[in-house]
Amino acid sequence: MLKEAKGLILVLSAPAGAGKTTLCKRLLQTSPTFISSVSFTTRSPRKQEIEGVDYYFVSREDFEKLIKKNAFVEWAEVHGHLYGTSKKFLEENIKAGKDVILEVDVKGGTKIKEKYPQAILIFILPPSWQELEKRLHKRATEDEKSIKERLSTAKQEIKYLPYYDYFLVNDDINATTKRLLLIIEAERYKINRVPEKEINRVIKNI
Amino acid sequence: MLKEAKGLILVLSAPAGAGKTTLCKRLLQTSPTFISSVSFTTRSPRKQEIEGVDYYFVSREDFEKLIKKNAFVEWAEVHGHLYGTSKKFLEENIKAGKDVILEVDVKGGTKIKEKYPQAILIFILPPSWQELEKRLHKRATEDEKSIKERLSTAKQEIKYLPYYDYFLVNDDINATTKRLLLIIEAERYKINRVPEKEINRVIKNI
Repeated sequence: MLKEAKGLILVLSAPAGAGKTTLCKRLLQTSPTFISSVSFTTRSPRKQEIEGVDYYFVSREDFEKLIKKNAFVEWAEVHGHLYGTSKKFLEENIKAGKDVILEVDVKGGTKIKEKYPQAILIFILPPSWQELEKRLHKRATEDEKSIKERLSTAKQEIKYLPYYDYFLVNDDINATTKRLLLIIEAERYKINRVPEKEINRVIKNI
Repeated sequence: MLKEAKGLILVLSAPAGAGKTTLCKRLLQTSPTFISSVSFTTRSPRKQEIEGVDYYFVSREDFEKLIKKNAFVEWAEVHGHLYGTSKKFLEENIKAGKDVILEVDVKGGTKIKEKYPQAILIFILPPSWQELEKRLHKRATEDEKSIKERLSTAKQEIKYLPYYDYFLVNDDINATTKRLLLIIEAERYKINRVPEKEINRVIKNI
């Protein structure tokens, strides 16, 4: 499947507050080959969120039509809202050589790995439980009920750790960005990423 | 098997002349955690080779006794000489947290991977066939017959490329050393390298 694909599929999962979004932004700044997957969602835009950049904001009705059309690599209902990863966006971009970064929850991550075994699944952990709670309290967008929900979700999500390829403890944003880039570069030297015809070319030339 | 092992098993394979030995030396200089596996061999020591450092030089009779004792992770006859990787050396060192570098041929590499699935197999390629031939001619130790043999072996070995984890084209020794180190660091963040009890500790603490 997609043997000619050149771009990487990078799945970043983390409990809310682990610093995933900041890390994604950092990655996007390091190289024009990175692109962030734009998901569909039924939730309302937050302040400063832009249609088509942060999400495609759609009605529940339209979202359900897309599910029927098999337009999602994975989709899920989280805290009452639907989120879905567009298959078209993902496949078109990796074919064009872009490295697509997907911020999805652990169930989404494992679904992506099933469909695209070449996907690189990275789990980002906060340095501690206390730190996670502190970070969530700092967010002006979260009320006490949401925080409790997110903490409870985090505890469930961490159980998926063994299904991931890598894990990083985000104790320092610069160090973690560096480690992410290092993992991505190392993955480029993996033999199973090289299309068969490229290996055959190397074998012949040597 | 060896669930508590902390050190990495690094297998470097390459056609003679690809720069494998120089790369190993570079790695050894970067960190005291690296250690080069000392193999047993029945061939005569070359000038400057030291017993117990470069190889354990043994008679064919003693080598065959060691085979019977199951002392080797892998062994092979190459160009009329026997070479074997000591199981004791490897297991003791990874238990002690050392990252053991093994310079073995492709058959040895695949045997090591069978016994130690956590081993990291890296194939080093010369930038071109012409360059490989040139490098072999430069070696004072090689006569014309050996060179022909080695080139023919190289062509066979390259067919094992798909069984390896990574491949690097050694066009520049500094760049290739850097890439090797980067692969090794990325591998340390792999979830399947972390012992189960460490994962459980992380899950509990978070």
